[in-house]
Parts: sequence; structure tokens; C-alpha cells
Amino acid sequence: MLLPATLDALVDRALAEDLGAGDVTSEATVLPDTRARALALAKSELVTCGGAVFARVFARVDPTTEVELLVEDGSVVPAGTVLWRVRGRARSLLAAERVALNFAQRMSGIATLAHRYVAALPPGARTRIADTRKTTPGLRLLERHAVRTGGAHNHRDNLGSAVLIKDNHLVAAGGVAAAVARARAYAPHTSRIEVEVKTFDELEQARAARADVIMLDNMSDEEVREAVLRVAPDRADGHGPLLEASGGISLERIARLARTGVDVISVGALTHSAPAADISLELELEPDGARA
Amino acid sequence: MLLPATLDALVDRALAEDLGAGDVTSEATVLPDTRARALALAKSELVTCGGAVFARVFARVDPTTEVELLVEDGSVVPAGTVLWRVRGRARSLLAAERVALNFAQRMSGIATLAHRYVAALPPGARTRIADTRKTTPGLRLLERHAVRTGGAHNHRDNLGSAVLIKDNHLVAAGGVAAAVARARAYAPHTSRIEVEVKTFDELEQARAARADVIMLDNMSDEEVREAVLRVAPDRADGHGPLLEASGGISLERIARLARTGVDVISVGALTHSAPAADISLELELEPDGARA
Amino acid sequence: MLLPATLDALVDRALAEDLGAGDVTSEATVLPDTRARALALAKSELVTCGGAVFARVFARVDPTTEVELLVEDGSVVPAGTVLWRVRGRARSLLAAERVALNFAQRMSGIATLAHRYVAALPPGARTRIADTRKTTPGLRLLERHAVRTGGAHNHRDNLGSAVLIKDNHLVAAGGVAAAVARARAYAPHTSRIEVEVKTFDELEQARAARADVIMLDNMSDEEVREAVLRVAPDRADGHGPLLEASGGISLERIARLARTGVDVISVGALTHSAPAADISLELELEPDGARA
Amino acid sequence: MLLPATLDALVDRALAEDLGAGDVTSEATVLPDTRARALALAKSELVTCGGAVFARVFARVDPTTEVELLVEDGSVVPAGTVLWRVRGRARSLLAAERVALNFAQRMSGIATLAHRYVAALPPGARTRIADTRKTTPGLRLLERHAVRTGGAHNHRDNLGSAVLIKDNHLVAAGGVAAAVARARAYAPHTSRIEVEVKTFDELEQARAARADVIMLDNMSDEEVREAVLRVAPDRADGHGPLLEASGGISLERIARLARTGVDVISVGALTHSAPAADISLELELEPDGARA
Amino acid sequence: MLLPATLDALVDRALAEDLGAGDVTSEATVLPDTRARALALAKSELVTCGGAVFARVFARVDPTTEVELLVEDGSVVPAGTVLWRVRGRARSLLAAERVALNFAQRMSGIATLAHRYVAALPPGARTRIADTRKTTPGLRLLERHAVRTGGAHNHRDNLGSAVLIKDNHLVAAGGVAAAVARARAYAPHTSRIEVEVKTFDELEQARAARADVIMLDNMSDEEVREAVLRVAPDRADGHGPLLEASGGISLERIARLARTGVDVISVGALTHSAPAADISLELELEPDGARA
Amino acid sequence: MLLPATLDALVDRALAEDLGAGDVTSEATVLPDTRARALALAKSELVTCGGAVFARVFARVDPTTEVELLVEDGSVVPAGTVLWRVRGRARSLLAAERVALNFAQRMSGIATLAHRYVAALPPGARTRIADTRKTTPGLRLLERHAVRTGGAHNHRDNLGSAVLIKDNHLVAAGGVAAAVARARAYAPHTSRIEVEVKTFDELEQARAARADVIMLDNMSDEEVREAVLRVAPDRADGHGPLLEASGGISLERIARLARTGVDVISVGALTHSAPAADISLELELEPDGARA
Repeated sequence: MLLPATLDALVDRALAEDLGAGDVTSEATVLPDTRARALALAKSELVTCGGAVFARVFARVDPTTEVELLVEDGSVVPAGTVLWRVRGRARSLLAAERVALNFAQRMSGIATLAHRYVAALPPGARTRIADTRKTTPGLRLLERHAVRTGGAHNHRDNLGSAVLIKDNHLVAAGGVAAAVARARAYAPHTSRIEVEVKTFDELEQARAARADVIMLDNMSDEEVREAVLRVAPDRADGHGPLLEASGGISLERIARLARTGVDVISVGALTHSAPAADISLELELEPDGARA
Repeated sequence: MLLPATLDALVDRALAEDLGAGDVTSEATVLPDTRARALALAKSELVTCGGAVFARVFARVDPTTEVELLVEDGSVVPAGTVLWRVRGRARSLLAAERVALNFAQRMSGIATLAHRYVAALPPGARTRIADTRKTTPGLRLLERHAVRTGGAHNHRDNLGSAVLIKDNHLVAAGGVAAAVARARAYAPHTSRIEVEVKTFDELEQARAARADVIMLDNMSDEEVREAVLRVAPDRADGHGPLLEASGGISLERIARLARTGVDVISVGALTHSAPAADISLELELEPDGARA
Repeated sequence: MLLPATLDALVDRALAEDLGAGDVTSEATVLPDTRARALALAKSELVTCGGAVFARVFARVDPTTEVELLVEDGSVVPAGTVLWRVRGRARSLLAAERVALNFAQRMSGIATLAHRYVAALPPGARTRIADTRKTTPGLRLLERHAVRTGGAHNHRDNLGSAVLIKDNHLVAAGGVAAAVARARAYAPHTSRIEVEVKTFDELEQARAARADVIMLDNMSDEEVREAVLRVAPDRADGHGPLLEASGGISLERIARLARTGVDVISVGALTHSAPAADISLELELEPDGARA
Repeated sequence: MLLPATLDALVDRALAEDLGAGDVTSEATVLPDTRARALALAKSELVTCGGAVFARVFARVDPTTEVELLVEDGSVVPAGTVLWRVRGRARSLLAAERVALNFAQRMSGIATLAHRYVAALPPGARTRIADTRKTTPGLRLLERHAVRTGGAHNHRDNLGSAVLIKDNHLVAAGGVAAAVARARAYAPHTSRIEVEVKTFDELEQARAARADVIMLDNMSDEEVREAVLRVAPDRADGHGPLLEASGGISLERIARLARTGVDVISVGALTHSAPAADISLELELEPDGARA
Repeated sequence: MLLPATLDALVDRALAEDLGAGDVTSEATVLPDTRARALALAKSELVTCGGAVFARVFARVDPTTEVELLVEDGSVVPAGTVLWRVRGRARSLLAAERVALNFAQRMSGIATLAHRYVAALPPGARTRIADTRKTTPGLRLLERHAVRTGGAHNHRDNLGSAVLIKDNHLVAAGGVAAAVARARAYAPHTSRIEVEVKTFDELEQARAARADVIMLDNMSDEEVREAVLRVAPDRADGHGPLLEASGGISLERIARLARTGVDVISVGALTHSAPAADISLELELEPDGARA
Repeated sequence: MLLPATLDALVDRALAEDLGAGDVTSEATVLPDTRARALALAKSELVTCGGAVFARVFARVDPTTEVELLVEDGSVVPAGTVLWRVRGRARSLLAAERVALNFAQRMSGIATLAHRYVAALPPGARTRIADTRKTTPGLRLLERHAVRTGGAHNHRDNLGSAVLIKDNHLVAAGGVAAAVARARAYAPHTSRIEVEVKTFDELEQARAARADVIMLDNMSDEEVREAVLRVAPDRADGHGPLLEASGGISLERIARLARTGVDVISVGALTHSAPAADISLELELEPDGARA
């Protein structure tokens, strides 16, 4: 759940940025009472995402605009699918169009890419694909939602919501055992303690320290498999550490990695390099209002 | 020139988003007076962009941090180049790291892609590659800067800063002549009047209406060439309309399109689909301060 | 079109400024359910402007208030005209009254002054009266709207939306030709290039450089006439530069200046020195609710 | 004392409004390291006001800019006086110039007008000229400061900081006595109770109710004199009500009104209709940095 | 009257703080269309306050939520009373619950404590209990409202809305007479002049200077009585100074202090140390929507 | 680590609230260049907290003010201790004084109360005292810091940073097993899954579901002891669930509860009902600047 006020702040900022001193072209050429309708059309196969944001953009420009979401977020649709339908004052539609698409194309782009990673998992795999903190500054809440919409999972939201001990923390604390102990003593008891390891030696230290999650940094498929085997005994009773593979993940490796039994594969590209989904808005004036 | 306050607002928003309740891990494992240094490293060839933003992120977390920009924005650098150097409190560096990279990777990613389009122009071409309004909501100023840094040009900043008459405006106004006349009567006299045309018939109407810029929407290379020829006489005296090719532009078409003599090629992908540039931050604690 | 959120931000800021800790007087003396009605009355002839802002102030204080706009923005009305009618809770009307008038009187004041300048143009003149960037900090969008409402035109919205080369730019660039060339190479292709000239020599350089607009700075009526004659040949084919007279413009000069054939006369006083229009709000409690 | 953060918010908003996507002209024609100096010059006699705001505008654009205030706020200076001196990067000065002047011209305009009203008081008069709540939305703190700078006084800051009972409050409460009693019971004990009266009958009621201030609404000079006489006995012991004349005040009436012995004359025009003071900024590039 | 926009800003800030990346628990376990109802229950005797804020929290999370205020602000209710009733989407109720209670418990806590102080006044006393500026940063408007709701009064809202001369001001100005004179000359004529005195000598100076309010700082009950007697003659005609007791006020002293005839007793604890009122929200899913 | 911009926003909001139209009293009575010094003094034993915030308030009013923190946050100091020392312009100190104390008294009040709870733990106990989400709206980050300063711990920061399944979630999901399974499938893998139980039956279900933390809601000391015994076997290998006691916690119960071996005791009163610590600011003008 995104708070309405949080969403509105994002939308309003984007609209102010795109409207500037007002839509000079439409004010000059379109009469105020001309009405129009528009269809948002998937131009290629994609996972739909951002319908609510798309709708909100039109509402913030003009609360009398009607938006109908024909396809639910998370649907995989073929090229040519009409996703959303808009109707209202022509000037309002023209003013909102670009911003609405900018949001929706980015969110659907991320959802579509996340879906490709998830689809690459072998059938029955219980590995989850997760995002990272490599999100667009200011849009994290929307992008994390897009990741979930595509069927993947979220990693920790930010630096304050979970512990992830990396190499520098290990050096500062004087080793894995000390770092985990300090983190456990300091962090809220609701947070798991995750430790990033680069070697099997560090992995063993993390096991000994009772880390809750162990991130395997830049390990090969074989190394990941080995790590899974080593940790297996600790998990016999249903507790015990989770394993996360991270770094140098490509779509091609997903199936092999998942077959190692690793719990989580985190992928920065989901949010930092997803191309925009191809969505266009087919807008047309309503007959009676067309001639100004 | 980006106003300091405008940049700070962007940076602060991103930092608040990423810090949340504070960096629990570093607070637990790193002493407050431990110091560190870090190098921002290009992991593949790229066009550097966003140095000032990168530096500002560290300054907003902690004004005592020192950042040195070793490479100027716009430089094309090979993999392995050290771009920027940071020094300060370890906690501050760890807190700022991800946000600083998120900005810099996105901006350098766009600059790098823009550079590839510009590099595809034939030698001596006077065609300019331009961006569009398909930018990330909230980041337009930064992304337009990145486009320029890569050697490409900006289109109008927003709906209020120039006139661009599209098909629906033509319908609303009752044709090209009427639409151009209305726009000219309404818009500030400092704005050119651009008209989007899909056919040669519309092109001729735009010429007759003395449009200042004519956008050729989704035309083939041959059609663009034909349009250039038709407009040539109007430009004999140094005034006369500019031509802009738009829609369905791929990197492969750039050279051919430029050879038609078209003035501008606008490319949405510059901003909506540029993958993040690969930049990492190699951070290490300073010896005397390492052991907490 | 002004975005609702943009208008609300302006209105809310003004209301918070004027309400402070709340309307102590009304809270003490008026019961919460007392109702009232009010009429906004032109106390002298004026051009109506700001009806939508006036209405929005009441709505932001209390969404149950009803406001009826009896006269459209841009109407020239005689003293005594009722412009707008309000009805709702007495406390809400009393709280909103002053801010609503402060906006409306300023906007109508500017529209009225703009109208006086436009009315001073000789019949059939195609010269336009334009505003400048000399607007009240924070209120530019409203004031530009008021200028248009009075029948005048807007100049460029801000430093980013068009090029205007002044004397210092000429010095920095090394002359008119170089400055225009640089500006054309740098600015979006949608922007015209305007150059300010103080002498006929500079005028000739601007012509030669194919400037799109030439601002005649502080020239006498005769000098403006001479400039118009010089530029006439460049405009034979419907393109060619526009001329703008600026500096030392008084209402008395408008007719003479327009007769020179100059395209634009820009007037800072429209926004920086327009006296408030005289509008009062006649508020009365509704009978049944009057006695608390 | 205006909080730095409050001033910065006003300045930043104005700068963002005026900069838009950045100063295209200067970026195109002026090199980044070109330096300049500028003098703010009074073009006609005025009361200086807004020096600190003027300086802050330059600092917010570029903290390296140096501004020297040569003349203190409140000084009456002849045409030709240099008020303030600026030095720094040419691009920064060009970007800040218009906004700095927009603030300073408005504030000096108000101070100058306030000064004219104060100067119209007869020698030795103890009447004070006061402003009203008819200020520019969003700029009240600056405008009240300007009023004081011109030698006049402030009325209550806003609806929450003092009680002013007007006709509708009287009707709602059922008369002067009841209204004053209610206000006294409700308002903070630090606030005086002011009552607006239109007749001598109401004046007598206000006296009887021990109102602290009595506003004489739209009374003639003679009526004001009569009111002063009636109230005189109540003030024998150094307490007793103040009298304020309001409504229909022109500069011409000030001397006569003051001679009645009225305590306060409040004038809406001080803030709602003061013309901008004529201040220009003479900017020139520094020799060594001029040629880009 | 609190402006809707002012209240919304407070509520939105609190909600964003408490929601973070969204209510993970409810999103995981409660279906989007599950509905619920909730009752806000007084767990001990209290003075109800904050109903409108409570309701607004739910509305800002989800405008479709219905809130019914069963008990008016200011009511003294026994433990077990149902104060407010909520109905809507279960996820929305769960997301808003904590913030709504945080506001309401604080406001009711303050109202309850204020009520205890007021109830300690002897029957018929005309002394008022007043708050101070010792409020929670950011929540002053709400806390002042709570104070009034509990039957106590507000002191000046802030440093700008009234004059209160303390010891350092006396030193700076060179004594009581000079300080009062300066304050009277400078402050708006709508503000009373209050002076803090620590001795009877200062009290006499304040009387002589015609201070409007005299604050008796840290005086014993007997000293306060003595002060009341001394000032009595000045008040014979209905004007004359008010007396305020301040510093070291406990609930036990209230009755004795009031019997001295002092006008105002100001108590910082009302806002800085009121314990939260005990209110709980009994929330239950609606039958048909319970099983996800 | 609190971001400077986040802290500044809190401080600026509080200052604007308290300054209003400016400090009329000091402006009237204290010359601009008068200087002063001040000592913040503990008036009773307390745990110091908020030094950095205290200092920041003075810096935001006037960057030239010097603040020295003599005592570190977290120190337990006796009455009479000087905590912080301030020096600067007298007007600036007077303007900042109240807000600086309002922050520091609240934060020290919470730290002091937290310390009392922690001090009530028996020697050697490994139970942690934790806060809740019952914080002052808008001040959570500061209050959580105060809790840690007093030696207690933070619970989850907000609804997005960890899972806490309560009774309604259990009903919605159809029982403990289903609720835990859903939460585990949905939440980030970095979050522990906490379940609130009211009975031993639910406790057993939570154990079986492998909940990471089990909150014992409103259980007696004996019930808590029983719960600890039941869960002991699950924790033999160093993993296994934590137990948290919550509801109806008083200072008197802490020792007994801790002796049960429960891991966490969460206490809402730490933040919602801590009385302000008694800190005063002894301010005096510097001799040479005292006489205005």
C-alpha cells in the first residue's frame, strides 16, 4: 500500500516538471470544452504495471477525468492489448499524457524484466529473485512495487530496515564473529543479520556466528552449490541461515543457480537497467467537440 | 546551471529514501571516528557524467567529506579509469555510497548512450541528435544535462517552453494553417512553432503556414530525404523551417538519416532506456582507524 | 492550464500565513454552524481576473463552501458589478475572505493595467503588448495569466525557455555574430534567438546573424520606425526577424510606437507596478444562523 | 529577525521559477570561469530596503558570490546612489540578477511609499501609520519588514495574533458588549481586543465594554476628531482605549487626521499598491575573463 | 479552526513515518477487499480530544473509510466509553491505526491534564489556567487546541504574536520603564505588553510603566497575594494590568493561588509532560471478508 | 546517523512555529549587536540526550552562534550539571532558546525514562528493553535515538521494516501457520517474522510455524516464564525463536520479567508518556554589549 499523499507528491512533482508554464500548444489550439478519449496500448508483449499511477496522473491534472483499468497489474499481455482507457477534457488528457506514460512505461519495463528472470527459474524452484537498492533516486517505492508485480521479491528497503554486513564492516569490527555479535546487539530484534562472504572461510565463520542470511558475493555456480551443501545441516530443524547469490548475475545463469538450491538471487539490473516498456496512448477528440 | 537548492532537494530526497531509520549496520560495526577513502571506478568504457551530483551526495550526508573529481563530465574513459576520489568518515561514506552511485550510473549511462548516437553520425554531419520528454519523472534536469554531456542536444524542456502541434491539435484547430496561426497568435514570440506531419500533403501545408520546425513522424529514410528536398528552397535566405525526424529511430538508422540532411533526429531511448553505466566504489578503511 | 496542485500550494501558503494560530475573533464570536453569504463587488471599473483562484481559496479553507463565478475572467466590468458569490459556514468565509481578495485584487489589477495598454493600441494594429520577467517572486504563473487575461501577451517564461542575448553576452562572446552562432548551436532547436541591440550598427549585425527576434533597447519612436524599415526586406517571404521595443515604455507612447509597425512592446510595469484592483467582499450572516 | 530557512525558502522558490531549465543564453555565450561585477543603482529617490534579501539571492545561486551592502536598509537616498555591490562568476550574477531585483524593487517600493505617508505626518505627531493584512500572498514577512523600514508600523500579523471584531462578529455575537466579552474570555490574555465601529453609538458601546482599541471605520476627519474627544476621559490614567482610523485613507488626509490626535492610521495601499522602486543592476564582465 | 491543508501535512508526515515501505504484514496476510470495523475505546477516564485528527488519519490513508465521532471533543468520559467508530478496508484500518491513536492519545492526554488543573480551581474562581510555549516541536497548533479542549487557555502563540519582557530584555534596555516604552513603540498596537518581575520593586516599576500584564516569576502564594493587592487600585476603572503567576506551579498550589485573585496561572507541564491518555482500538474483520 | 537535511527540516519547522512574525520583544529591547552567553543546566538528575539537536537549533537561527557540548549524549548527570554552553548574538540566543530546550527536554526525558527501565533489570540479565511505534507523530527518529541513548533498544522502525502478525492478521489468514507462511513468502528475506500470541495454544502454533519472534501479549510473569521454558528446546542450536513480553508493563515488573529469561520487553510508555527532563537555560548578556 502506497499512501495517496506519497503517490500524489511523486505525481505532482513530475507534472510540474513537464507542464512548466502550461501547455501552450493545447491552450492555443484546443477549446476548453473539447472532449477526448484515449487508449493505452501495449506495443509489444509486457507485464502490466503502474495502472494506479497512470490513473492518478490524470486525476491530479483534472479530477473530472475518468480512467478505466482494463487489465490488472501483473498481467502478461501480448502486443496490441488495450491496457487502460481514459476519457475527459481534451486539454487535460494532452497535458497528462506524457507523464502518465513515463511512469507506466518505466514500471511495466521493470515488471517485464523481473518476470523474465522469474520465468527463467526451473519449474518447482523455490529460489526467489530479489531486487537491490540500485533503484532510481526518488522512485524506490514504485520500483519495488514493479519488481513484486513481475513476480520477483524485494530485498531490504533501505539501510535502516535490515542489517547487511559487507567487507568493510568486517574489517572495522575485526572479523565475522565480532561483526555479527555487534550487529545482533545493536539492531532491532526484528531484523535478520545478513553477512556478505567472498570465500568459504568467511562462509564458515558466518555459519559459526549464526548469521541469519549469508550473501555469496560473486561466486560461481559451483561455489554456490558447495555453499548450499555446507549450510544444509544447519537448516535441518527449519531454522538456520538462508543463502543469497549476488554479483555478476545474468539471465543465462538463473536456471543453473536456482538448481544449486540457493534461496535468493539478487539482481541489480531489475531496476537500474530495465528498458521502458513500449506503451503508447492513442488519443482522439470526441466528434462533437473536435472543431473549436 | 542547476540551482544548488534544486540539486540538494533531489539528493536529500534520495538519501532519506535510502537511509530510512539510519544505517544500522555501520552504526553497529564501525566506530564514529573511523575514516575511509574510496575510488569510483569505471568498470567498462563510458562517458563520465554526474560528478557534481556524486560529490553533492557525500556533502549532504556529511559536509566534512572531501570529494575530488579526477575526470571532467563528458570525458570518454576506458574501463579501469578512476573517476572520482572520496575521503572522510567511514560511516558517512558507507551511508552515501549507494545513492551517489545510483545518480552517477544513471547519468553516465545516458551520456554514454547519447554519445553512441552522436558517434554514429557521419563525419561533418550537421544533424543534431535530440532527446524527448520521455525522461524519468522528477529527474528531467539531470537527464537533460546527461544528454548534453554525451554530445547530443535537448528538445523543448516542457509543454510550456515551446509549441509542438501534433495530430490532435490539427484536428481540434481544423487543419495545419489554422493551428499554426493560432499557436503563433497565442505563444510567446520567443517560441518557434513546430508542427508534426505524417504525410507530404501535411508537409506542404506546414510549409505554406510558415511553420518554424516540421517534425517528420515515423517517416522512412527515403521520405525524410524527399522532405529535405522539398523544403530546401524555403531556406535559401538563411531563414526557413528546420526538419526533425522522429519515431522508430534506431542506432543503425542514424548515419543514413543524417545523410538526408535532416536537421534534428529525436530519440526517446536516450533517456527512457539507457542502461546504467557500470561504476563501482572501491571503499577501504584507513589503517589507523580500522579497528574499532 | 495551471495544475490544481500548483494552485493549491500557492493558496495554502497564503492561507497559513494569514491564519496563523487560527481566527481567534471568529472562534470567539461566531458559532460553528452559523452560515453566511458574500458578494465580491467591483468598486471601480476593472478587468476581472482570478475567479478560479478566489474560489479555490474558499475551497481550501472549507470544501463545503459554494462559490459561483458570475463574471468570466477577462470581462471589463463597471463599478458596482457583482463578480462572484460565496455561501457557506460563516467562520470559513471570514477566514478565507482576506486571502481570496488579496489574490483577486492583484490579478485583476494586472489584468486591468494590461488592458489599458492594449486599449491604447491604434485600431487594427498588429503590435502585441508583452510582459517581462519583472513579476512578483513566487506568483509568476498567476501574473502571466493576468497579463493574458487583460489582452496582452507573455514574453519568455523564464531563463530556460528561450534565448535573449544582452549586452554582457555580446561582450562575453565577442560580438553579435559569435553570440548568435553559439546560442543557436547550444539552445533547443525549438527556441528562437533574440538579441538586444542599442544601436543601428548592432541591429545590422543582428540582421546579418539571422537573429529571430531583435530587441530595440531604449530606442525613441523614430529609431524604432527606422529599425522597422531596415528589417522590412528580410521579412518579404514571411520569415525574417521580429522587432521588440523595450525600455522606457509609457502608456502615452503605445500608440505612436505601434504605428511604427514594431511587432512587440514589452512593459515591466504590467506586473511590477500595477495597483490592486478595488474589489470588496460584502459578507452577511444568514438570518437563522446569526444569533449565536 | 527572519529565520534564514524561511528566507531561503522564499528565495529558492523565486529562483526556481525564474531559472527553469537553466539560463540557456549564458550557458551558450559566457564561459564558466568568466567573472563579473555589478552595481545596484537607485534610478530615482527611494528608501532602501531588502539588502539582505538581495544578497541572499546571489548566495543561493552561488555561495562564492560576494555582495557588499553599501547603504543600510531604511536610508533615504537620491537618484544615482549605488546601493549594493556584487562580484563573482558572471554566469551566477546573470542568473540571480532578475530575482534579486524583483525582491529589492518591491521591498524598496513599499518602504518608499510608507516613508511618504510617515513624512506627511505633522511635526511632533504621535500618530502611527500602520499596514494591514492586504499583502502579497506569500510575502507578508518581507512586506511587513518593508513597512517598518519606511518608518511605519505593523498591524496584527494575522488572524491568530490579535482580536479585531468587525460588523459581522457584532451581529453574530449580538452586539458590542457581548462580542467584546466573548473575545476577552476566549483570546489569549496577551492580546488586546479591538472593535471596529461605524457610528458614535457603537463607539459608546465599545467604550462601555472596555475595548482596548477602537477602529473608526470610514469616518471623516471631523468624526475622527469627535471620537478622540469622547474617548479622552477614559485615558486620563494612562490606560484606556486606542483609536485607529481606517478606510478611505489618502496621502492628503494624513496631516489632518493626525492632528485629530488619533493613535493609528492604517493604510492598505502601503502593501497592495506600492509601485516598484526603480533600481537597476549595472553588470560588467571583468576584463581578463571577458573573452570566452 | 485548523486549515485542512495544515492538518493534512501533519498527518501525512506521521503516516509516511509509520508506513515506510508499506505495511508488509497486512499485505501478506489480509486480502485487499477484506473489510473491518473498529472502535476507539477509552480505557480510563479522560477528556476526549483529537476526534477530527483521528478521523483525518483514516481519510488520508483511504478516502473510502468511514469514521463516526460518537463523543464530542471536550467530553469527560468514564473508562469503557466508545469514542469513535471506524469502518472500511481492513488493510487501510490496520495501516492507519497506530498513527491515529498516537495523535488522539497525546491530544486527549493533554486535554485530560488541563482539565485536572481547571478542576482544581475553587468554585467561582475567575483565574484562568494557561499553557506556555513548552510544546512538542511541530505540534503546537494541536496541543494548544487540546489545552482549550480541556478548559484551560492559551498563552501567546509564538514570539511574534505578543510581547513578553523577561530579565534579559530588562538588562538590555536598561530597566523596566525603558523596556516597556521601547516595546510599546515597536510592537503592533494590538499587542499587550507583558513584563516578567521577580521582586516587588520590579512590580512597582511595571505598574508605573503601565505594563498591560505582569508576570510574577516563581513567587510564593503569599507573594502573589501581595502583588494582587498592590495592583488592585490600578484596576478600579476596568482597565489596568493583569497578573500572571508562573514557575514552580503544581496541581496542589492551584486552589491557593487562585484564591489570591491572580488572573492567570501558566503551567508548562500541560504540554511538556502530559502522559498519553489510554485509548485502544478494538479492530475486527467483518465476517464475510475475513477468510482470505 | 540522522541526515543533516532531515534534522534541519525538523528544526526549521519548529523554529518557524515558534518565531512567527519574529521575536517582537527582543527586536524592541535588544540591540542587534548585543552579545550573550548561556548555559544549559540540568535541574534534576537525568540522562543527557539531544545535544546535537540543541546545537543545530542555534545554528539554524544564526550560523555564527557557537555551541559547546560539555557532556556526551547518554551521560547520567546529577542536578546542577552544565550540559551545553552557547555564545553569540543575544537576539539569536533569545530566539532559539525555547525550541532548543523543547527538543532537548523531550529527548532527555525519554532517555532518562528508558534508563530507569534498563536500570531495573537484574545484574547480568540479557533481556532488552525495547520501544514501540507509540511515538510522537513526526519525531520518531529523534525519539528512537533517545531510547537507545538511555540504554534501551528499538523495535521495528515502521510497518515496512519488519513483520509483526497480530490477532487480526491471524483471523484474516486463517490461523498461525497460514499467516506465518504467507508472511515468509511475501516479506523481504531480511526480515524476521514475529507473531503475537495470547495463549499457549497459539504459542505452540507459532513454534510449529517456525516464527522467528513470538510476542507474548499481556501475559503474567508466570505465563511468560512458562513460555520461555516451552521454547527453550528450539533454541538449543543457537537459532530458534526470540520471546518478547508486551502489554501492561510497569517499571515494577521489569526485574521479575527479566528473570524469566524473556528476550525482549517492549514498553510504549518510553515514548508516549515520558515527562520532559528539567533543563533550563541560564542566559546572560555580555557586559560590553548589555546596554543598548
